Amino acid sequence: MDVKKYLTQQCAVVEQALARYMLPEEGVLANHIQAMRYSLFAGGKRIRPILALAAAEALHAATAPLLPVACALECIHTYSLIHDDLPAMDDDDLRRGKPTCHVVFGEAAAILAGDGLLSFAFELLSHPDALQGISPQAQLTMINTIAKAIGPVGMVGGQSLDLAAEGQAIDFEHLRLIHGYKTGALITASVQAGAIFGKGDENQFAALSRYGAQIGLAFQIVDDLLDVEGTTADLGKTAGADAQRNKATYPAFFGVAKTKVMAKEAVDAAVTALEIFDAKAEPLRAIARYIYERNN
Amino acid sequence: MDVKKYLTQQCAVVEQALARYMLPEEGVLANHIQAMRYSLFAGGKRIRPILALAAAEALHAATAPLLPVACALECIHTYSLIHDDLPAMDDDDLRRGKPTCHVVFGEAAAILAGDGLLSFAFELLSHPDALQGISPQAQLTMINTIAKAIGPVGMVGGQSLDLAAEGQAIDFEHLRLIHGYKTGALITASVQAGAIFGKGDENQFAALSRYGAQIGLAFQIVDDLLDVEGTTADLGKTAGADAQRNKATYPAFFGVAKTKVMAKEAVDAAVTALEIFDAKAEPLRAIARYIYERNN
Repeated sequence: MDVKKYLTQQCAVVEQALARYMLPEEGVLANHIQAMRYSLFAGGKRIRPILALAAAEALHAATAPLLPVACALECIHTYSLIHDDLPAMDDDDLRRGKPTCHVVFGEAAAILAGDGLLSFAFELLSHPDALQGISPQAQLTMINTIAKAIGPVGMVGGQSLDLAAEGQAIDFEHLRLIHGYKTGALITASVQAGAIFGKGDENQFAALSRYGAQIGLAFQIVDDLLDVEGTTADLGKTAGADAQRNKATYPAFFGVAKTKVMAKEAVDAAVTALEIFDAKAEPLRAIARYIYERNN
Repeated sequence: MDVKKYLTQQCAVVEQALARYMLPEEGVLANHIQAMRYSLFAGGKRIRPILALAAAEALHAATAPLLPVACALECIHTYSLIHDDLPAMDDDDLRRGKPTCHVVFGEAAAILAGDGLLSFAFELLSHPDALQGISPQAQLTMINTIAKAIGPVGMVGGQSLDLAAEGQAIDFEHLRLIHGYKTGALITASVQAGAIFGKGDENQFAALSRYGAQIGLAFQIVDDLLDVEGTTADLGKTAGADAQRNKATYPAFFGVAKTKVMAKEAVDAAVTALEIFDAKAEPLRAIARYIYERNN
């Protein structure tokens, strides 16, 4: 399959849904909504929503009713980027080739844009529209899965560990842990949301969870590689930032060549996890391979 | 009834539940959890959880299964205080008589403590334990009600308007709007959560919502009064901060005497809203009166 075409198509589907669900930039709250929309519509690849939809597709589910959940996942991802970029955190001025939220709107407005997007995500997740084709019980399980993945023992905890590790000598096990929380948890939860929506049985859910964990890992390894090998223009964010901050990364531990092998291994493990699925899982397989190819 | 005794008892019930549900300060994430616990266990009055429990009680419901929801409301309130106190926001060094979260743990850790508490709140709200005695559908309605109340067109939006209004000449209608979003929305949602849990019918839900809106208003008016009349030692936060920041407040618009009358009117309206309820609503009535008495 033509994965680039698939990603472009699905990205457009998510983009349209986001435009439909997101608040319009009008009324007394226009400034706040403008800051949220600025970062939300800054050209993200929508990979987490696309993964949720593709996981549901792998289980032969009609994916349209999953769109509010898909949009919520993107709101959560965007909130995490806005907060991570803040001066008190990673202090990044560029994101996706554009000035970051706090550069444009100021620090207070950026903190609140993140807070607003996170709250709005849970409004979408509990949205009555998200009910079609799924039991309220399953919807609750989905909300709980996502909330856990992004909380203290998940994405936020990972960012906290990441900041604490800056300039410290950490071992590889600790790096894996940070990545797992910071990047892996939400990616895995995105795939799991699709699995819950698609009414996967226990085996299918476990397989999709393994897939999610492995592509989360691949994603992070490739991100580390791109930071070393990419240019600021390619990345849309400052290249070489990790090395500048003296951050522990895969290339710093293993060198570029070995890191590429490890990325490939994670992708292969992700594809292997999908053995029990038929051709409907082809998008998931293609996405896994594509993550590796981003850098090759 | 002895409202102080009731509040002390219920505060202890909430405190115990928070201790039970909140993550322990151990393991690799201990620092992050410590920052969350520092603010969560800093001596809050637990008024929002108590309101949720009291609203359920007014509907003759057994309130124990509502405790995860009650704790979630307190996590949300605490997150909002941590973020509001940040240097980029209100820049407050004192809260409940203690140094604020960012003063103790640094700005990045405080932002993440807030983010962690907000995410954890939704984990609690979708917690399987919160299911006892309530349908999954009702639980979803509760999550949606709370998420809406604290999002862009709610608490976060209110904080955004509040910051934008600093040093600006705003009219009273705008002040009411800010208060409604910033303080009223979560207080109302807390009462509504209890109403949903207690299976209130349409009339009961509307009455409890009116009660919530009126005590939210009373709460904010009294808060404005305390900032004028209290001392830093009484308040546990910096007294006179509103005037220093040239903030629009009820006393600034109407003077202290007229503001007291307005607080009393809001409390009376809250009590009147509860006419259709029997003696089980006495705690709600007593809490309304107590809000006014805080300042008298």
